[in-house]
Amino acid sequence: MALLDQDFLLSNEMAKKLYNDHAKAMPIIDFHCHLNPKEIYENNNYPNITRVWLNEGTYGDHYKWRLMRANGVPEELITGDGDEYQKFLAWAKTVEKAAGNPLYEWTHLELRRFFGINGRFDTHSAPKIWEKANALLQTDAFKPRNLIKNSSVQAVCTTDDPASDLRYHKLLKAEEHQSGFRTLPAMRPDKLMQLEKPNFDDYLQELGTQAGVMIDDFSSLKRALHQRFEFFHGLGGRLSDHSLLTYQFIDASESEVNTIMQKAVKGRALSNDDRNIFLTALLEELMRLNHEFGWTMQFHINSARDLNRPMYATLGPDTGYDAVGTQADIVLQIQKLYTKMQSEDAIPKSIFYSLNPNDWLAIATMIPCFISGGVQRLQLGAGWWFNDTAEGMTTQLRIFAQQSLLPNFVGMLTDSRSFLSYPRHEYFRRVLCDFYGRLAAAGRVPDDEAYLGQIVEDISYNNAYRFFEFFPDQKPEEFFD
Amino acid sequence: MALLDQDFLLSNEMAKKLYNDHAKAMPIIDFHCHLNPKEIYENNNYPNITRVWLNEGTYGDHYKWRLMRANGVPEELITGDGDEYQKFLAWAKTVEKAAGNPLYEWTHLELRRFFGINGRFDTHSAPKIWEKANALLQTDAFKPRNLIKNSSVQAVCTTDDPASDLRYHKLLKAEEHQSGFRTLPAMRPDKLMQLEKPNFDDYLQELGTQAGVMIDDFSSLKRALHQRFEFFHGLGGRLSDHSLLTYQFIDASESEVNTIMQKAVKGRALSNDDRNIFLTALLEELMRLNHEFGWTMQFHINSARDLNRPMYATLGPDTGYDAVGTQADIVLQIQKLYTKMQSEDAIPKSIFYSLNPNDWLAIATMIPCFISGGVQRLQLGAGWWFNDTAEGMTTQLRIFAQQSLLPNFVGMLTDSRSFLSYPRHEYFRRVLCDFYGRLAAAGRVPDDEAYLGQIVEDISYNNAYRFFEFFPDQKPEEFFD
Amino acid sequence: MALLDQDFLLSNEMAKKLYNDHAKAMPIIDFHCHLNPKEIYENNNYPNITRVWLNEGTYGDHYKWRLMRANGVPEELITGDGDEYQKFLAWAKTVEKAAGNPLYEWTHLELRRFFGINGRFDTHSAPKIWEKANALLQTDAFKPRNLIKNSSVQAVCTTDDPASDLRYHKLLKAEEHQSGFRTLPAMRPDKLMQLEKPNFDDYLQELGTQAGVMIDDFSSLKRALHQRFEFFHGLGGRLSDHSLLTYQFIDASESEVNTIMQKAVKGRALSNDDRNIFLTALLEELMRLNHEFGWTMQFHINSARDLNRPMYATLGPDTGYDAVGTQADIVLQIQKLYTKMQSEDAIPKSIFYSLNPNDWLAIATMIPCFISGGVQRLQLGAGWWFNDTAEGMTTQLRIFAQQSLLPNFVGMLTDSRSFLSYPRHEYFRRVLCDFYGRLAAAGRVPDDEAYLGQIVEDISYNNAYRFFEFFPDQKPEEFFD
Repeated sequence: MALLDQDFLLSNEMAKKLYNDHAKAMPIIDFHCHLNPKEIYENNNYPNITRVWLNEGTYGDHYKWRLMRANGVPEELITGDGDEYQKFLAWAKTVEKAAGNPLYEWTHLELRRFFGINGRFDTHSAPKIWEKANALLQTDAFKPRNLIKNSSVQAVCTTDDPASDLRYHKLLKAEEHQSGFRTLPAMRPDKLMQLEKPNFDDYLQELGTQAGVMIDDFSSLKRALHQRFEFFHGLGGRLSDHSLLTYQFIDASESEVNTIMQKAVKGRALSNDDRNIFLTALLEELMRLNHEFGWTMQFHINSARDLNRPMYATLGPDTGYDAVGTQADIVLQIQKLYTKMQSEDAIPKSIFYSLNPNDWLAIATMIPCFISGGVQRLQLGAGWWFNDTAEGMTTQLRIFAQQSLLPNFVGMLTDSRSFLSYPRHEYFRRVLCDFYGRLAAAGRVPDDEAYLGQIVEDISYNNAYRFFEFFPDQKPEEFFD
Repeated sequence: MALLDQDFLLSNEMAKKLYNDHAKAMPIIDFHCHLNPKEIYENNNYPNITRVWLNEGTYGDHYKWRLMRANGVPEELITGDGDEYQKFLAWAKTVEKAAGNPLYEWTHLELRRFFGINGRFDTHSAPKIWEKANALLQTDAFKPRNLIKNSSVQAVCTTDDPASDLRYHKLLKAEEHQSGFRTLPAMRPDKLMQLEKPNFDDYLQELGTQAGVMIDDFSSLKRALHQRFEFFHGLGGRLSDHSLLTYQFIDASESEVNTIMQKAVKGRALSNDDRNIFLTALLEELMRLNHEFGWTMQFHINSARDLNRPMYATLGPDTGYDAVGTQADIVLQIQKLYTKMQSEDAIPKSIFYSLNPNDWLAIATMIPCFISGGVQRLQLGAGWWFNDTAEGMTTQLRIFAQQSLLPNFVGMLTDSRSFLSYPRHEYFRRVLCDFYGRLAAAGRVPDDEAYLGQIVEDISYNNAYRFFEFFPDQKPEEFFD
Repeated sequence: MALLDQDFLLSNEMAKKLYNDHAKAMPIIDFHCHLNPKEIYENNNYPNITRVWLNEGTYGDHYKWRLMRANGVPEELITGDGDEYQKFLAWAKTVEKAAGNPLYEWTHLELRRFFGINGRFDTHSAPKIWEKANALLQTDAFKPRNLIKNSSVQAVCTTDDPASDLRYHKLLKAEEHQSGFRTLPAMRPDKLMQLEKPNFDDYLQELGTQAGVMIDDFSSLKRALHQRFEFFHGLGGRLSDHSLLTYQFIDASESEVNTIMQKAVKGRALSNDDRNIFLTALLEELMRLNHEFGWTMQFHINSARDLNRPMYATLGPDTGYDAVGTQADIVLQIQKLYTKMQSEDAIPKSIFYSLNPNDWLAIATMIPCFISGGVQRLQLGAGWWFNDTAEGMTTQLRIFAQQSLLPNFVGMLTDSRSFLSYPRHEYFRRVLCDFYGRLAAAGRVPDDEAYLGQIVEDISYNNAYRFFEFFPDQKPEEFFD
C-alpha cells in the first residue's frame, strides 16, 4: 500500500466503510491541548515552516527534537540559533531514519492535509517543500484560527493556571462566531501542587488576588479555588487536569494541612509526607469542586521529567528530556483517594492517563468500582504521549472495551502545542475503525455497518459532546449552523 | 463474518480444522469453579433468565453488574429489588454498548448454545427473548445437572472451606451415575488465611471440630489440616486454592508462629509481619500436604478487593468492586517460598494465576526452576477474570508455549458462578486452535493436522484428565461409557 | 505453510523481498556471545550431536535443559552421566512437545542450515538424524572455526574477565586471516562487582597482578582498570558488559568507597548500601572508561538467578535455574546514574537489555534524554534470553522504532554458548523484514523496496559495523576481501 494511502491503517472493507462513511466527517472536540490562547487570538501567520514545526527558541515540538538528537544533529540546529533552513534540512535527514516512528506518519500527514504536498519528505524533496510550504504559510488559510476551523474543530480546551485572568479567552469569546469554534479554559493547578518550589508564597498571593480572597490557610485556599471554578465555569471551563509524578495518599487533619502550608509559605524544608498530605487534601478538594461544578477531572500519571539536568538548566522544562516513569503502587494510591471520596459521594467525572501502559489494566479495572451514577463517568484516557501510536491506541481501546463499555468512550484529544496537529484525530479514527473492523472480521461484533458506524461516530465526536457539557443547550446536529 | 459465525475467532483453514475436527467434541473437566454444590444437588429450575443470568439479591454475576453500572443503570435494577423484567431490559441496553467486551460474546454464545436463540440481543429483541428463554428454563433440560451434563462436563470441582462437611458432595456422589458427571470438592482455606478477622477463634474451633482435633497451636492445626486433606481426598478432592492479595515470605520458628496464633485467637492487633509469618508457615504446610496427597495447589495473586467501601458495607464481597492489584515483588516472594520448599523436596503440582498479566513472564520463567520430577508439574494458569478474553488467553498461551511446553498445558477452567458458563470452553478452544493455526500459517509449527490436532485435544481435555488424577483407574476413552 | 518454509515468518511480498534480496546475504557481526575462545582456538570436532547441542557435563545449553525437565526427563539424561544417545532421544521426545517454543524453530533451523536435514525432528526420525549428524560432525566443515566462518561471521566478541590474559585472543589474532573472522575480547567484570563474595580479595590481587598495579584502594583500582581497558583495546576490545540483578544508585565520597573496599577485602559483612555505594562508584568509573576509549557499555538488568538452591549446590550457575526478575525502580536508578554522568559529560555509547520487557518502554523513552553527540549512541538492546522470540523481537523493534530511530539500530547479537546458534540471525532478520513489510502493507512506511532494503541491510550488519568501530580503517564492502 502506498504511504498514507487513502486506506492506510484500514485492514478490511468494514474498517474502510466505518472510516470513510462514518468517522471521517465528524467534527472535533479538542478537550485537552497545550495551544496558546494568545496565539489563537493574535492569529498571526508563521514566517516559515521551521517556526511552526520545529521551534521558536526553546519553545516548540520536543517530540521532533528528541529524534533529531538521536540522529546526531547538533543542538544549534535544534533549539539553538542555527539557520532555520538548516534546521529544516536536519529534520528532513532525521525523518529519513524515522520509518516506524509515529512522527514519520504525522509529518507526512501534516504535509498532505494542510499543504497538499503528497510526496515523500526527505533531503531530496526538502528544498522544494521549504519553498512551497513557506509560500502557503503566508496565506489566510494558514492563520491559526483558520487552521483550527478548517480542521472541523468546534471547541479547543487550553491549559490554564487557576490564577489566570483568562484575558484571551474573554477576547476570543467575543469573536466566537467569527472564529467558528470556541476556545475554552481548562484548569491545571501545577503551581499549587508544587508547594516545595521557592515561589509558592508569591503564587498563593497571586491566586488570592485573582480570587478576591486572602489565602492564609487551607480553608481560605478552598474559598479561593471555589471562586476560580466559578470564574472558569463562566467562560466555559469544564475540565481540570492534574499531573502526578509520584504520589502517596496520606489523610490528615486540616490543622496538619495548615501547618504544612505555613512551612511551605515560609520556604521551610518539606518532607515527602508533608508534600503528600497537602496533595491529598488538595486533590480531595479538587474532586469535590469538579463534582460540584459537573466538571471532568483528568489525571496524568507516571511521567519522569527533566532527567538531563545540564540541558534542563540551559533549556528549561518541556524540551525533550522526559521519560516514562514507574511508581509501582500509584494505582493503589489513587484507589485509596477514590475509596475515601466515595464515602463522601464526591467522585467527579474522571479520565485517567498513565504514561506507563503497564498500569492501564489496573486502572481500567478500578474504574467500574467507582463509576455509578451516570454513563461511563470514569474513563481510561486515550494513549498518551509516548503511547500515541497505532499500537498504543489499539491497546487502550482494547482494554477500555474489555473492562468497560467502549462505545461510551469520549475519545481522542490532541495534547499538542502546534496548530498542525489535528490530523492525529484522523489517525486515531482510522485506528478505531480498524479496531472494530477487525473484531467484525473475526465474528466478535455484529457485521453491521449501521451499528458499528454509530459507535465510531459516537467515539469520534458525539460522546465528547455529551460528556463534557460544553454546549448544554444544543444537540450535536445543531452546533454552529 | 457474521456475529459468532461457525468460524468465529478462527482465522485460517488449519484453525477451523483443529477446532471442528479435534477440540470441539472433547469433554470438559472443570477443575475450578464457584458453582454451589447445594444448587447442583437440589437441581431446581430457575423461574426466569434474570435469576440465572443476573442476580438473586446480592448473589449473581458481578461481571455483568459492573457493565450495567458503567452504563448508568441504577443499583435498584442491578442488585436491588427492582422488577426482574426491567433488570433484563437494563442488561439488554447495556449489551448494546458492550461491543468489544467479552460479555458481548459470552451473552450471545449462551443464548445460542443453550436456548437456540441466534439473533442479536438488544432492546428490540429483548421482549421475545424474555418469553422464549423463560419458557425453556422451565423444562428438564434447564435443570442445573442437565445444563452441566449436556455441556459434556465430566467433573466439576467446587470451592470449599476445609471446615465444610461436604454434605452435598456426599449426596451427589451417591447419584453420580445418574447425574452423568462428578461433583468434587476443592479446598480453599480463605478463613484460615484471614487471621486478622475477628471470628478467627471461632473458625479454628469449627475446623477443629470437623477434624476431630483440638486446635490450640500450629502443631495441632497441622494435624487438623491433615485430617481434612484425607477427608476431601476420600470424596475425590485433588486441588487446593489460595488467594494472596499481598504476601511477603517471612520464615520464622514454630514458636513464633504459635505466639502469633495466640494473638490472633485473642483478637489482639497483628502486625503485617505477624500476618506474613503465619501465612508463610501455613503455605509451607499446605505445600507439604498437597505434595503428600498428590494434589495440585492453585495460587491466585494480584487482586485488589472491595475498593468501594460504602457499597461493600451494603452488598458484601464479590459484588463487582474488585480490580487488578499490583504487588511489585510478589513473584519474588513466591520464588522464596518455592526455593525454601525445594530444599525439603516438597514442591507440589502447582498452577499460578496472576490477575496482573505484567507478572506472567516472570512466573512462567520461574516455573522451570522448580518443575523437575514429572511432566510440567508447575503451570502458568489460564487467563483469569479480567484476562479471560481472546487476547488475554492468547498472551497466556504464547508465554506458556515460549517458556515451557504448551502441549502439556492443563487448559481452561470455568471459574464461574453460573450453570450457563460452559461455552467459555468453546471460546477458549477456538482461541487455542487459532493460536496454533496462526503458527502453522507462519511456518513455525508443522502444517500437520494430526500432530496439531492431538495437541489441541490434549490441552482441551486429556492433559487435565491425566494431570489431576480424578479418575485414577480409567483411561480417557473409558470414562462414563 | 510448511515448517520453516523458505517464506516462514514472512507474511507479505515486501517482507519476502526484503529478506531474500537484502537481509539474507549480509554478514554477521556477533558483538556479544558466550563462546569459549579456547574452543575456537583448539578447533576440535565434536564426537556427537549431544555434545554440541545438549551438554558436556554441567556445561551446555540450559535453554534445552529447562524444557527437558518440564517434560519429566530425569536429571541423569540432562546434566548427568546418562548415555549420550539416550539424552538425544530424550531431547527428541521433548521437542515433540515444544510446538510454539522458540527452541522448536531453532532446533529445526540448525538441522537444516548446518546438517541439511530437512525433515521433522521427533522420536521417529531421531535414530537416523543421530547417525547422519554424527557423521557430518567429524568433517572439516564442522570444526568450530568453519561453523563460524561459513555462517558469514566477521567478528565474534567473547565475554572476558578484566583479569584475563586473553591468551587465546592473542593466538587467534595471529591466525585471523586463516580463520576468516576476528575473535575479539569484551570485558565483563562480574567478579569485580561481586564484592560480597569470599574470594574478593584474591580477585583484586589477580586483577592487580595482570594490570601491574598494586590495588589497595579505589584509586589504584581505577588505574588497574585503565590498564585493562588499554590491554583489551589493543586486542580489539570495544565493549564492556554489566549484569545488574538489583541496583540502587547511591553516590558517596571516595573515602567511603575505600572504607567499603577495605571491609570487602577483609571479608567483613557488607550492607546493601555498602554494596550499592561501591557499585555506583565502579559503574561511574566504567562509564568514564568506556567513554574515554570509545567503547560501548552494555547493561543486562532484571534477571533472577540460581533460584533452585539444591540444584545450584549440585550443578552451579547457568544450569537452567534463572528467571525474569522485577526491580520496580531499576530504570529510575539507571536514570540517576546517567543524570549524574551527564553532568561530567561522560556518557558512553550504551545498550540496555532488560530481561523484563515491562521496562522496555521506560528505558526506550529515557534513552533520548542522554543521547546527544552522535547517531543513536544509546540503544534499547535486542530481545534478550526469554524474550528471544518472534514476538519479543517484534515488540523490541516496535518500541525502538516508536521512541527512537530504528534504522540506526545495531541489531541482533547471538548471546549463545554454541557454535550452531548463528541461524538466530536468520530468524531475527526474518522478523525484522516482516516488521517493515507489515508497516508497508498498512501504508505506514513507503512501499519502496530500495528504501526499506537499505534499512534492513543497515540493521542486519552495516550499523553494527559502524557503531562499534571494530574495523576503523575499513569500509563495510572492503572487509576480508
